[in-house]
Amino acid sequence: MNILLVYAHPEPKSLNGSLRRFSVKRLEKAGHVVQVSDLYAMKWKASLDADDSLDLQTRPSDMRFDPNLDSRRAFESGRQSQDIALEQDKLRWADAVILQFPLWWYSMPAILKGWVDRVYASGFAHGVGEHSDARWGDRFGEGTMAGKRAMLIVTAGGWESHYSPRGVNGPMDDILFPIQHGILYYPGFSVLPPFVLYRTSRTDEARYSGICDALGQRLDDIFQTAPIPFRPQNGGAYDIPALTLRADISPGTTGFAAHIA
Amino acid sequence: MNILLVYAHPEPKSLNGSLRRFSVKRLEKAGHVVQVSDLYAMKWKASLDADDSLDLQTRPSDMRFDPNLDSRRAFESGRQSQDIALEQDKLRWADAVILQFPLWWYSMPAILKGWVDRVYASGFAHGVGEHSDARWGDRFGEGTMAGKRAMLIVTAGGWESHYSPRGVNGPMDDILFPIQHGILYYPGFSVLPPFVLYRTSRTDEARYSGICDALGQRLDDIFQTAPIPFRPQNGGAYDIPALTLRADISPGTTGFAAHIA
Repeated sequence: MNILLVYAHPEPKSLNGSLRRFSVKRLEKAGHVVQVSDLYAMKWKASLDADDSLDLQTRPSDMRFDPNLDSRRAFESGRQSQDIALEQDKLRWADAVILQFPLWWYSMPAILKGWVDRVYASGFAHGVGEHSDARWGDRFGEGTMAGKRAMLIVTAGGWESHYSPRGVNGPMDDILFPIQHGILYYPGFSVLPPFVLYRTSRTDEARYSGICDALGQRLDDIFQTAPIPFRPQNGGAYDIPALTLRADISPGTTGFAAHIA
Repeated sequence: MNILLVYAHPEPKSLNGSLRRFSVKRLEKAGHVVQVSDLYAMKWKASLDADDSLDLQTRPSDMRFDPNLDSRRAFESGRQSQDIALEQDKLRWADAVILQFPLWWYSMPAILKGWVDRVYASGFAHGVGEHSDARWGDRFGEGTMAGKRAMLIVTAGGWESHYSPRGVNGPMDDILFPIQHGILYYPGFSVLPPFVLYRTSRTDEARYSGICDALGQRLDDIFQTAPIPFRPQNGGAYDIPALTLRADISPGTTGFAAHIA
């Protein structure tokens, strides 16, 4: 199968760098074809702007740039910046996508957020499908990435207890919800449970070996592991267009957890 | 008072651009001194890397870059990239900080995330204070920004119901928690309730006028509004070093909401 690893760490000689090399080897040994988007090595442009459309690079200075509409126009007319189009091709090619990054300030590094902001063009990853009384676009379980799997590999400096249900940072599942549900499930990916490492500054050889065993197993199982059972938006659980959970679905439950069946 | 507005939208002729100009005028009219960090106009470098330390720009190619340690070394030795040091000076100067941005993929635009990643140096916004049995650093209610106020101004394309307690996106308060608690409360800011606008593509003149009335009131009250009562980390509510809520504090409550008194 085809696997895309989108990798966002500035230092190859880091724990993340080691795990990335380990992952590629392990996946290739299992017979998969792997492409890596090493965002720092690619000097990925992080900030979405008018230059992302070839037609706007020479726009008149009084022309208004609309991030959503101009993204759509460039996507539909084949006039996107080439770096964006190439990443979209990799996403189309992939059967599974892994995002690997260190957790910086409770989210992904800016360079990876900028990959999402720019590659997820209107018409490609959002703004797809009909909006009616019965459907609200192809999203949250449907969309361009339907049938593909996705998974996060995340390293955190803090302790696991700090990210536990009553830990000061908030639960890791909730911190990752805007990424797993909002960025991966939104355009249709089936999202596997994340592989998260804590307190990474304390990683000696024995611990590293155990990490590789656990990560290797997750990679071996990438096409078998059961996805997180997020609720499909257009599957009947939500009132449309309010997009609130129907009163009879998990009555009384609110927040991120309500969107997991 | 001194107010810093950190602004992240690529188009001055946007709703965000109009609200930014309105806000600056309103605050100045009230007698405040306002500085704006217009990240797109500044061509802010979004990606944290070794170039952020003047000493590492010419480092040997086999030298390992450590985002945390090298950030601290550069901060403590005065060898940070000048753009970072200037933003830290603005933060020290400010009595209140406003972050204004469109919600892109359930978080801030990459350029603003990159402002946080780079300006929040180790020794400045984290890694401050003693770690002992009684304290776990000056953070979550203490730290460099203690005594200052902060507030988000956020625009979203989706409907308010989509961000309600049972809305498909998850509740806006939870989506913003990693920013309000994890980025603003962490280094000590008192965080005001956010000013959030929904369905922004439908903004005619009448609605815009109402928005300005509401936002203007929030800006008039910026030094009076009661902050979100996040729980101080070292105030007795958390066990140290596990940093989990003590058993007698909101027993049975889990998730982000447990950290609000």
